[in-house]
Amino acid sequence: MPQLAVRIAALGSVALGGYFVGANIEKRRLLDILQNALHTDRLVLESVLDKRKPAEIFEKLSFGKVSAATPMSVSDSIATGPARVSQIMKYGFPGLDNVRSFDNYVLSYDRRNRVAHWVFEHLTKQSVKSNDQINRSKCEFRPDQSVHTFFRSDNSDYKGSGFDRGHLAAAGNHRLSQNHVDQTFFLSNMAPQVGKGFNRNSWNNLEKYVRKLTNTYVNVYCCTGPLYLPKKEGDGKMYTRYQTIGANSVAVPTHFYKVIVGESPDGNLDLECFCMPNQVIPDDVPITSFQVPPESIERAAGLLFFERIPRRQFSKINGRKQ
Amino acid sequence: MPQLAVRIAALGSVALGGYFVGANIEKRRLLDILQNALHTDRLVLESVLDKRKPAEIFEKLSFGKVSAATPMSVSDSIATGPARVSQIMKYGFPGLDNVRSFDNYVLSYDRRNRVAHWVFEHLTKQSVKSNDQINRSKCEFRPDQSVHTFFRSDNSDYKGSGFDRGHLAAAGNHRLSQNHVDQTFFLSNMAPQVGKGFNRNSWNNLEKYVRKLTNTYVNVYCCTGPLYLPKKEGDGKMYTRYQTIGANSVAVPTHFYKVIVGESPDGNLDLECFCMPNQVIPDDVPITSFQVPPESIERAAGLLFFERIPRRQFSKINGRKQ
Repeated sequence: MPQLAVRIAALGSVALGGYFVGANIEKRRLLDILQNALHTDRLVLESVLDKRKPAEIFEKLSFGKVSAATPMSVSDSIATGPARVSQIMKYGFPGLDNVRSFDNYVLSYDRRNRVAHWVFEHLTKQSVKSNDQINRSKCEFRPDQSVHTFFRSDNSDYKGSGFDRGHLAAAGNHRLSQNHVDQTFFLSNMAPQVGKGFNRNSWNNLEKYVRKLTNTYVNVYCCTGPLYLPKKEGDGKMYTRYQTIGANSVAVPTHFYKVIVGESPDGNLDLECFCMPNQVIPDDVPITSFQVPPESIERAAGLLFFERIPRRQFSKINGRKQ
Repeated sequence: MPQLAVRIAALGSVALGGYFVGANIEKRRLLDILQNALHTDRLVLESVLDKRKPAEIFEKLSFGKVSAATPMSVSDSIATGPARVSQIMKYGFPGLDNVRSFDNYVLSYDRRNRVAHWVFEHLTKQSVKSNDQINRSKCEFRPDQSVHTFFRSDNSDYKGSGFDRGHLAAAGNHRLSQNHVDQTFFLSNMAPQVGKGFNRNSWNNLEKYVRKLTNTYVNVYCCTGPLYLPKKEGDGKMYTRYQTIGANSVAVPTHFYKVIVGESPDGNLDLECFCMPNQVIPDDVPITSFQVPPESIERAAGLLFFERIPRRQFSKINGRKQ
């Protein structure tokens, strides 16, 4: 009988080996297909899958615990590849339309408007502090070749338009390496912004404010994007109206939003949401006057932010205790 | 030695069994996760995966041919479930943003504008012919509960707006069962359309034209959606401008498109593309005057149509031999 037991054990281990080979090939195959069908890059799909791997399935099947199911610590260090995407997108994807991952931020591209739906960043004190090793003047604004030529914006679209190529993922948030900051200069990360009085002033102040949050929080998650808001016209009806620039009809957003989660050392979570009009804003208007409820941005953008965190779990929303 | 061979074969079959169990569990697990993360329904993901299953992976691994890898015949009969989605979407998904499958059509929802990006239908002579068993007057316009409440349009949005609730997937294309036609009345399949002179006239004529194509082609694939086109204003600049109606800010498209592939009994493929303004169009304007190159719709919509068919493979585009 011991011999039989050994034989069964041997058979079992072969079957188990077959299981993992099968599972792995199937995962690679599905990712290949979905990457192609979804126009979404592989790191993003890997990240979605890894973040949600239900350890229970494996445990129920008595295959024991699987190391990949262990939650990853985010605050300790900046990872690379799929693990970095998982860190940045820890609390959920706002949407998965044409998502692309860069080394230090993740972007969803709106092919109709030629401006991102959203960009997602994870900031730490380390990643935003001055770094003599990087040189912003070496960076070049360049078209994002990963976007289909029908939907890709070009430098020529902005030229003579009167609008700045405004960063969504701010260059100053990516100071860990020259490569990180370089990648914020892809035109897929740009939106036409009013220059003087907005991009170079009030919006820049908001970006600085977000960086300063890393003094308070160990992890800062920031989602940034454009809005196209309707307003009432003379006939009493509501209209959405926005300029489009260049041969590629790049949309000029009426507003921009930032939705930010700060994570304290003790795991406490705070939420802040800003919506600013794409126009000259006097310097003396305080940033807090642009705070809005998260739902108003979600409804207008067609997105759901940080959906893996129940709203009641936030200690503060826009500075107010819940 | 024969005994050893038998034992190895036995081990092999156990490992193979393990492979397929593993692959299946992994597929179910990945689909569960992606369905949730992508806000895309499971039938659609199954369909994407099944259409692109590369038989070679299995063959290379010497597991032999797999029946699911055999191409499905479309012209013979109307399937149900994932197989029906595969039939409708045979030549590719224009995009995979918030895709939902109904029994006889597939829809991608634009959560920002509260109108679909596109709906996809597969028409045959059978599915469009008069059927005494179905009764359109029993159908009710109703909100689509599968859409998040933040992004869902309601009958109240249309009430008093002056616009019709215009079908994207036409009711008259779904005459195989009461259930099929009922499902075209979800508000996710509606767009605000000018009633008299457009929805009830010229647009209706285009819908009838598409149904008539089933006299020529065994399979007709039709993709329909809205456009929001910019135009030059008094200051010489281009602006996109469209009305939004109701408490849910449902966008009123400036134009609508139809991109249609007809498949002859011999497998010949023709392409026709129409773009009509959402306004009163005199009855005597011929439908052909709204034909446009496919690329112009693709650029404006941010979508790629029938991308699994190389353009040079079409015998005719808009009636012209290639």
